[in-house]
Amino acid sequence: MATTNRQLILQSRPKGLIAPGDLQLAESPLPELQDGQALARVKYLSIDPTMRVWMAIDSYLPAVAIGEVMRSLGFAEIVESRHPDYRKGDRITGFVGLQDYLVFDPSKSQTLQKIPKIPFVSDTTFLGLLGINGLSAFFGMEIAQPKKGETLVVSAAAGATGSIVGQIGKIRGCRVVGIAGSDEKCSWLKDDLGFDAAINYKQPGWKEKLAAAVPNGIDIDFENVGGEIMNAVLGLMNLHGRVVLCGLISGYTKEDPGMASLGTILVKRLRVEGFILLDYVPRFMEAATQLGQWKMFGKIKDRETIVEGLEKAPEAMNMLFTGANIGKLIVKV
Amino acid sequence: MATTNRQLILQSRPKGLIAPGDLQLAESPLPELQDGQALARVKYLSIDPTMRVWMAIDSYLPAVAIGEVMRSLGFAEIVESRHPDYRKGDRITGFVGLQDYLVFDPSKSQTLQKIPKIPFVSDTTFLGLLGINGLSAFFGMEIAQPKKGETLVVSAAAGATGSIVGQIGKIRGCRVVGIAGSDEKCSWLKDDLGFDAAINYKQPGWKEKLAAAVPNGIDIDFENVGGEIMNAVLGLMNLHGRVVLCGLISGYTKEDPGMASLGTILVKRLRVEGFILLDYVPRFMEAATQLGQWKMFGKIKDRETIVEGLEKAPEAMNMLFTGANIGKLIVKV
Repeated sequence: MATTNRQLILQSRPKGLIAPGDLQLAESPLPELQDGQALARVKYLSIDPTMRVWMAIDSYLPAVAIGEVMRSLGFAEIVESRHPDYRKGDRITGFVGLQDYLVFDPSKSQTLQKIPKIPFVSDTTFLGLLGINGLSAFFGMEIAQPKKGETLVVSAAAGATGSIVGQIGKIRGCRVVGIAGSDEKCSWLKDDLGFDAAINYKQPGWKEKLAAAVPNGIDIDFENVGGEIMNAVLGLMNLHGRVVLCGLISGYTKEDPGMASLGTILVKRLRVEGFILLDYVPRFMEAATQLGQWKMFGKIKDRETIVEGLEKAPEAMNMLFTGANIGKLIVKV
Repeated sequence: MATTNRQLILQSRPKGLIAPGDLQLAESPLPELQDGQALARVKYLSIDPTMRVWMAIDSYLPAVAIGEVMRSLGFAEIVESRHPDYRKGDRITGFVGLQDYLVFDPSKSQTLQKIPKIPFVSDTTFLGLLGINGLSAFFGMEIAQPKKGETLVVSAAAGATGSIVGQIGKIRGCRVVGIAGSDEKCSWLKDDLGFDAAINYKQPGWKEKLAAAVPNGIDIDFENVGGEIMNAVLGLMNLHGRVVLCGLISGYTKEDPGMASLGTILVKRLRVEGFILLDYVPRFMEAATQLGQWKMFGKIKDRETIVEGLEKAPEAMNMLFTGANIGKLIVKV
């Protein structure tokens, strides 16, 4: 029976890529099991981009504390148990942590759960297709609501989530285009997974190739990357398209304040909708009638800042950006 | 009868604020009216942040061409007509342009329309409350779907749109907090318009004051500004809150690539939804069953990259950011 445990301890919060000292391997004796506890041997660790976020900042989960075992999903097997519901050989998944062994109290743990033996399903499948990635693809595509004939673009398409997203897109009858970072990845997507096209964003001219691959524009962006790739995709989207903000991996290792808004939108699961008044032209009269009534009954007040002279129009326009006006800014000609 | 027209011509696309040479005043003779045309005297110009976008880039409308009269909404009166439906004294609104006079062909113009004389409604009201601003506030608040008791925050709150947004929020029973750039503006919002609170973002400690003003968090962000102000608001939002992206004025005069994604979301009226898998825990079994079936029937394939050894986990994590893995990345312990 093992008596020592190896653990990767968070020593410092990374800037950029994870530096050698950020996570340090430490050995410690395994504690003796208490009543109600079980000891599990970690077999497989799920390595996910979101771990970089957990190392750095509070997000949808609190950041891992300095000095603690690094949080990680994984697959483990019970090797010893003093809990009535767990026996040697039972298999569990959940937050096992970056370590060899895991001592846990099943009645208190909220994330660890037993998983059944299923024919044809390997242990690691519980981390990928039937774990965080397959589930993210499945529910993210519910948000996307793909319709037959629509065009879906997925970034980080050869990743664990993206590759399943694209295949669900095909099942739903979409034209599916993946963006990935090597020709090998692109071949896999097209030849093995049935993507309609795959674009290697490390090749020159990839944006033109992406445009050519979506002759009817893009209806759905399943976004895993952010930054330049996201901007290229958004630029080809059809009006009123949908973006599922699932990841912003290009921003996780950078300090880009421009990504901050999108990061918060993701973490807080906000629904953001772009809005241009022109879409509502046929209903202008209805709205103006309501607004006019509210004004008449004193429920809405308006105020104006009036600048005299056509020649003052350029200066007046700048007032908007310097905050010099209150209420509606008008030039009297 | 006037024979010359003054026009502000777009000479160069602005960088930052509009520079004196970007729009140049030019005089030209008024053309003789043809059959079917009308001549209107521009009385009032609506000065709107979106004009800065029209000067610079193609967006939801094409950019104004260099050498053309600058596009502008406005209010004008017919002074001469050779069109059967228009008579001297008729009042019109729409894209009149930054000029003294406007020659147009009513049967061809898509934006100019006659407006009635309405008691108690001044001419300029057709540009603000009953024009682009009031209508934007009205339809934007439809997207926001405010519910009684929810907290609404609006930025550029003392602007023509924001001030109406907040008042509609009060009509709908929301707690309304405005963000504006002077104490005078804040007093107007609170004392005259009935906002529950107004925060001057130019005062130190404004973020703390904003937090204190939204004890139940923020349910709706009616966003007109973007950048630092938007980030502060998003940081206080409740999970699954709604953001109406109506303007990003803090980005219009800067070259901030981080704002590019949000700008495209706005212009293309995209619906963006942040997504965290944890929200779907109760439905994991349902999804895993479906995914497992798809795998069994060969409709979904998965692939793994397996790294051996717990001590390799930190390196493995970086593989995600350098693109070194294909499919699911797993560490075998």
